[in-house]
Amino acid sequence: MSAPQLLAPAAVVADLEAHHDGDLAALLELVRIPSVSADSSHAPDVRRAAAYLAERFRAAGPFEVEVFETARHPVVTAEWRGAPGAPTVLVYGHYDVQPPDPVERWDSPPFEPTERDGRLYARGASDDKSPMFIPITVAAAYFRTLGRLPLNVVFLIEGEEEIGSPSLVPFVTRERERLTADLVVSADGGMWRADHPSTMVSTRGMLKLEFTLRGAAKDLHSGRHGGGIANPLHAMAELVASLHDADGRVAVAGFYEDVQPIPEAWRASAHSLPFDDAGYLAEVGAPAAFGEAGFSTLERQWYRPTLELNGLWGGYQGEGSKTVLPSEAHAKLTCRLVADQDPADLRAKIERHLHEHLPPGVTLEIEPGTEGATAYRLPDGHPGLRAVVGSLRAVYGVEPWVIGMGGSVPICEAFQRHLGMDTVFFSFAVGDEDIHAPNEFFRLHRFVEGRRAWADLLARLPEEIGHG
Amino acid sequence: MSAPQLLAPAAVVADLEAHHDGDLAALLELVRIPSVSADSSHAPDVRRAAAYLAERFRAAGPFEVEVFETARHPVVTAEWRGAPGAPTVLVYGHYDVQPPDPVERWDSPPFEPTERDGRLYARGASDDKSPMFIPITVAAAYFRTLGRLPLNVVFLIEGEEEIGSPSLVPFVTRERERLTADLVVSADGGMWRADHPSTMVSTRGMLKLEFTLRGAAKDLHSGRHGGGIANPLHAMAELVASLHDADGRVAVAGFYEDVQPIPEAWRASAHSLPFDDAGYLAEVGAPAAFGEAGFSTLERQWYRPTLELNGLWGGYQGEGSKTVLPSEAHAKLTCRLVADQDPADLRAKIERHLHEHLPPGVTLEIEPGTEGATAYRLPDGHPGLRAVVGSLRAVYGVEPWVIGMGGSVPICEAFQRHLGMDTVFFSFAVGDEDIHAPNEFFRLHRFVEGRRAWADLLARLPEEIGHG
Repeated sequence: MSAPQLLAPAAVVADLEAHHDGDLAALLELVRIPSVSADSSHAPDVRRAAAYLAERFRAAGPFEVEVFETARHPVVTAEWRGAPGAPTVLVYGHYDVQPPDPVERWDSPPFEPTERDGRLYARGASDDKSPMFIPITVAAAYFRTLGRLPLNVVFLIEGEEEIGSPSLVPFVTRERERLTADLVVSADGGMWRADHPSTMVSTRGMLKLEFTLRGAAKDLHSGRHGGGIANPLHAMAELVASLHDADGRVAVAGFYEDVQPIPEAWRASAHSLPFDDAGYLAEVGAPAAFGEAGFSTLERQWYRPTLELNGLWGGYQGEGSKTVLPSEAHAKLTCRLVADQDPADLRAKIERHLHEHLPPGVTLEIEPGTEGATAYRLPDGHPGLRAVVGSLRAVYGVEPWVIGMGGSVPICEAFQRHLGMDTVFFSFAVGDEDIHAPNEFFRLHRFVEGRRAWADLLARLPEEIGHG
Repeated sequence: MSAPQLLAPAAVVADLEAHHDGDLAALLELVRIPSVSADSSHAPDVRRAAAYLAERFRAAGPFEVEVFETARHPVVTAEWRGAPGAPTVLVYGHYDVQPPDPVERWDSPPFEPTERDGRLYARGASDDKSPMFIPITVAAAYFRTLGRLPLNVVFLIEGEEEIGSPSLVPFVTRERERLTADLVVSADGGMWRADHPSTMVSTRGMLKLEFTLRGAAKDLHSGRHGGGIANPLHAMAELVASLHDADGRVAVAGFYEDVQPIPEAWRASAHSLPFDDAGYLAEVGAPAAFGEAGFSTLERQWYRPTLELNGLWGGYQGEGSKTVLPSEAHAKLTCRLVADQDPADLRAKIERHLHEHLPPGVTLEIEPGTEGATAYRLPDGHPGLRAVVGSLRAVYGVEPWVIGMGGSVPICEAFQRHLGMDTVFFSFAVGDEDIHAPNEFFRLHRFVEGRRAWADLLARLPEEIGHG
């Protein structure tokens, strides 16, 4: 392979180095804002984060900046269309974060960013505040040094990604003209490994469902009443257990109906990667691999659908014991979808399963659903992928891996369906950074690498995409 | 039936009426103390309740009062042996209470006793502070009016009933001489219905077990990792579901081994009571009766063993969703035992079941066990039962029901095994008073009835039991 060439202008790269400390400080200010989108008590913080981003865009250069209200949390956009004839990219990211629970498991407070061993520990440091903030600082460097960007850029930073982006589709369809571009570059997503660059070309879809079983109208004494009426915890266990067979396959009728066999090329690609179960299990600390029989661990995580309980609870959870026969049991679940699986269709199938398998003596209440998202895959040989791979190759000096991904970036499918745009992934987070868990962190050297890479990508995209 | 005659001395009854308000105020002071034995942060409150009781005994009369330290919470005793030649009774009760969770479901704060519609609402008002406090006030009335009690009385009031009385057996065996009596009268237990007096002649035993399933070493992102490793919530559901068959029968091998068929007389007695499923279900607000096939609801609650989950939890329980693959799932369970079922033997059987049915991909940890209790039944035709029935008949003017009970009073079996004493139940709580649940209450008119009845019982016992 010939020596990779960095296309980023030297002046921009030098400017980024000069502004490293100030840009990092600006990122930390954002990370300190507890913009937890799922928790309505944090709504003012979410709003504060949006306002802070708008301020940073205005400071970065001559962007047209807007903070759009939605039904829940604001969307921030920043447009610069000063490169007529050049292509246009939409840069996507999100400024909201997951809840920090269980807070007591954090080694440092989740919203006090703390540097330890070259890592920045904080909720949202990896998902998605650092990766999303990088291109804003890179645009600022272009404006400072060259007075312009190499192509037209529209930033779209939302505040509802961690709750399934309910407002994004209405927003995207309403603001079609403002947002239409030749390509979406997602700063959300994350690389597979810390020790090798990668970009992903597929994500799984998602579906959420929450339900409650009820027995008696109130909690009862388990001695006096036990044996007389149904215990919702037993019923819940029976109902949840019915969702999978003993081999880990989802037992909901029709669940696999729209799932296509994994293409042989994908299987071969997954098998060629340096992955083995033993190393993976050591990394996550699990005693054994487990899941749908007949597929490797990577195949199950990237290319097969799942149904996972995310929360399950009822009765007494405190110290000691409490002899209670609880009145309620609750469950939250999510599915990851692949290929042509439709979230609404699958939701209906799961609801039917819950009703049909409902144990006697309890009632079932299913929470109203949100829309969900289908899976996404970038078409083979896409020019945006060539640009991303080229920039990663130039910065890291090795051939990047092109991988699948088990998580969901529901907006990919939304951009494709509603605006006809494909999405490439260009995030400098890594999948092992404990996102959605205590002690989430971001590797600080990737702030440096990410800024070089984004500077390169903005210069490389016009070459690969051609003119808009 | 001939008109029942109250054996309580008229002077004592009059004195109780005169002191009603002051005695009730003294009870409220006790109820205000949050003596939650299961929660170690309340240990000082438990101790404060013990000290307050000791003070009340000293104020009541010439009792020899002791507060004994144990491994956890103190035992309070008060002895009066001024009736040589008369029998001796041990009066049992407890001053500890269940945790008040969920506190947000209470209509008034759990430790601010509040009177509404003739009911006293507070945690512990029914279980067991009011019923236990009544005989103390009755003893005071005897001492004030007659200077003596009609028989020898030893009070034993413990502070660990709600956590399974772990210190009581060591205490009872060590203080054998102080405690040995002709009969135990338990102020704990409660009547079956509010509209008809009853006493119970059997209680179920108890066994507690808590366990945890673990998958990965930490919470993971359910999108990235879902499908690759086991989800402890799924494994927990499968394991818990395996504990019962579809008909509600416990599926643990050997669980019913030492259970005897219900005697025909007990079944007939249960069937003769004014109980029907429809009325019961309306009372507790449950959609249907459910439980072991082949037995009526009362039979299942009084005479059949159960295995009930009291708590089940893992993962995210907050508002909205969190796409987490949790690292742990937890369960707390209790069994109610009958006849010759041995708690240690059953615990071993359940532990074996959990190990043998453990789903793949998770590890099982069972918390170390406490001793548990076997079931108890008063021998037929017991003289103590005649006395209790006589006093209830005299106060209420109807024939009391003699019933079974689904709950556990583990000390009955302990008194029988270690000191050879039988126990009768003489409580003025009622089973519908939401004990162990939000809005626990005690009917205030039963404070009056209970005091008359205890005054009568102390006078009647020497006649029925004869001399010690």
